[in-house]
Amino acid sequence: MTTTVDEHAAYIAALLAPALTPRSESVPLADALGRVTARAIVSPVDLPLFRNSQMDGFAVRAADLATLPVSLPIAGEVSARPTDPPPLVAGTAVRIMTGAVVPDEADAVVPVEDTTTSTTSDGETVTINRGRVAGDCVRAKGSDLRAGDELLPAELRLASRHLAVLAAAGLDVVDVRQRVRVAIVTTGSELIEPGATPTLGQVFDSNGTALAAAARAAGAVVASRTHVADDTAALLAAMRVALAETSADLILTSGGISMGDYEVVREALEPLGAIVTTIAMQPGGPQATAVFEGTPVVCFPGNPVSTQLSFEIFVAPLLRATAGMPPAVRAPRTLTTPVRSVAGKRQFLRGRALAGGRVELVSGASSHLVAGLAASDLLVDVPLETESLEAGATVQTWEL
Amino acid sequence: MTTTVDEHAAYIAALLAPALTPRSESVPLADALGRVTARAIVSPVDLPLFRNSQMDGFAVRAADLATLPVSLPIAGEVSARPTDPPPLVAGTAVRIMTGAVVPDEADAVVPVEDTTTSTTSDGETVTINRGRVAGDCVRAKGSDLRAGDELLPAELRLASRHLAVLAAAGLDVVDVRQRVRVAIVTTGSELIEPGATPTLGQVFDSNGTALAAAARAAGAVVASRTHVADDTAALLAAMRVALAETSADLILTSGGISMGDYEVVREALEPLGAIVTTIAMQPGGPQATAVFEGTPVVCFPGNPVSTQLSFEIFVAPLLRATAGMPPAVRAPRTLTTPVRSVAGKRQFLRGRALAGGRVELVSGASSHLVAGLAASDLLVDVPLETESLEAGATVQTWEL
Repeated sequence: MTTTVDEHAAYIAALLAPALTPRSESVPLADALGRVTARAIVSPVDLPLFRNSQMDGFAVRAADLATLPVSLPIAGEVSARPTDPPPLVAGTAVRIMTGAVVPDEADAVVPVEDTTTSTTSDGETVTINRGRVAGDCVRAKGSDLRAGDELLPAELRLASRHLAVLAAAGLDVVDVRQRVRVAIVTTGSELIEPGATPTLGQVFDSNGTALAAAARAAGAVVASRTHVADDTAALLAAMRVALAETSADLILTSGGISMGDYEVVREALEPLGAIVTTIAMQPGGPQATAVFEGTPVVCFPGNPVSTQLSFEIFVAPLLRATAGMPPAVRAPRTLTTPVRSVAGKRQFLRGRALAGGRVELVSGASSHLVAGLAASDLLVDVPLETESLEAGATVQTWEL
Repeated sequence: MTTTVDEHAAYIAALLAPALTPRSESVPLADALGRVTARAIVSPVDLPLFRNSQMDGFAVRAADLATLPVSLPIAGEVSARPTDPPPLVAGTAVRIMTGAVVPDEADAVVPVEDTTTSTTSDGETVTINRGRVAGDCVRAKGSDLRAGDELLPAELRLASRHLAVLAAAGLDVVDVRQRVRVAIVTTGSELIEPGATPTLGQVFDSNGTALAAAARAAGAVVASRTHVADDTAALLAAMRVALAETSADLILTSGGISMGDYEVVREALEPLGAIVTTIAMQPGGPQATAVFEGTPVVCFPGNPVSTQLSFEIFVAPLLRATAGMPPAVRAPRTLTTPVRSVAGKRQFLRGRALAGGRVELVSGASSHLVAGLAASDLLVDVPLETESLEAGATVQTWEL
């Protein structure tokens, strides 16, 4: 059975939907950067909390400035230190600092630079040469936001300015969506960990590193990461441990799903109802899905480029959306080189963005070219039935 | 002394340059996502490490397929399990799995789907109907990358595909730039922590939350975060602790630098040579810088919007560049509403992006409007001498 990329993507979206259904948790503001609000947040308070001065200067009654210049006795001072000042006596001024409580009966603040002060035997007076209207240089209580107003909407990815307004409203925690917990199980008896010394036929595992980093980059948490040899019992045990010990929402596997003789994922999961299919795409033709003890499993082919592109095409968009991240950019670009492709397979070639909306191919089509993939920054999406494209043709590209 | 935004930005860039000079550290691949390579990395190995099969099929000598169809005795099997197979005997074929070592003397692989096999009393034979040229379906050693070739360039922000190629080359650690360590000291006797219960005149501190999150979002590490009352001894002690206990590269302060009576940062740092200046901008006019025990200090005004925008304008671009992040997008947009501004001050108003390259203003110009800032996604940059702009005018905008 051959399936198109879009059909398989839709199938995986449906399979993962329950696992990606937002659940919420409450986290301190200091841990909430980049998290996504689980619900709209309503302000518990007016912002500002109280009527305060916008400037260093003098709190006055605007009516007292009707005739200019005017000299008013300075009846006291309100600093930005917390205080509950007495009401302003008509015909006087009170020295006030930025952010300080504006006394009752005062309705305007005259900035210090518009005043001169002098001291006589009667005390200190301030002389004002310019009139003011009520409200001048006064920040009204609730003028930024009223208690009960929406502080932040639901499904907002929290940036510093959003956390700042939560703090300003006195909130020290915020309800955010839980991050999706991904368990990664790579397979292959030929694979060894980076840092080890290979014998002939051994290959350094890059799939565990790639899937873990790609899941994190898509806003998920790596709940566990395990490598197993081509041994069905070991694979099933690793998957059970991932679910029991780490509460993974989702399992990703790599390797063991093609038509060869030692296909550990297929052998372990087909008896449990896994669907192994061939997608009309290159690289990444063999793909599989399963449900293991109630948890969805997405199985990628083991060739490193196939694993990475499969994640990017089928899983990353779902994780990014759940994490409130914008979709990766897909945009048409102009090919600088001709492309050969295979009819009946949608090819994802590796490309590099050039100025002027152009794209050049990097490396070859083969699924072992990990350095080629690392050197690219775009996928070039060659449609299913296209066999060749000329230089100058327009192709769809996916940003990596 | 009045300074322009660009002059102050250049001054801070020079002040911070030593603190932002890249130093490197070696980190495991699992911790390296989003970090920046400290130097170009050369591959210690050929990729692939050995000549291997691109397909499940039969390793053959292409010369043995000169006359078709041809039946070859199957002389054995090479699985993907690590193995060092004997050389291929001329006139025979060897069953081979994807990724397995191609035996010496074999120069092509025939995919299994192009073959039929049969078993006779002499053993198993494979019949091949289509010719092959040397190299077909064989991944040559080093065909992706040669030992000594550049695996990754210097100053690259590491994505999953870059970590994957490091792993594939057997590297388990990578030299990256150290992250800049930022100490944050907020000041103000009127400020209380979110979650506390304010009395009249007290304000929830949003600057600590905002600066910590913004520093992280710009790729830095928050080495420490402290709040002090308007007390010069407490401020100096907090700064000393930040340097001694957390090895901060850089100190940020908020509050206490304007012309009022309780200006703790100015009072503490001016005697040590701090430069307090007025920038021709709104919000954020008062700004200061200092060097404290050899470490640069950037001092922002305490109004929440001023603090946040000052960081965004003067410090974030430097931290982002050090972290290998692209600069925040600055792009011209069309105003949907008229703007009033003050000649002699470059205004940074809050705006929201609309479709079609337009921008609407959000909230007012005042520096206490934290909810307004949270509701915006752009700064609207109104030039120094502009007093008004009509709807339809083009303005520069900065993405938040």
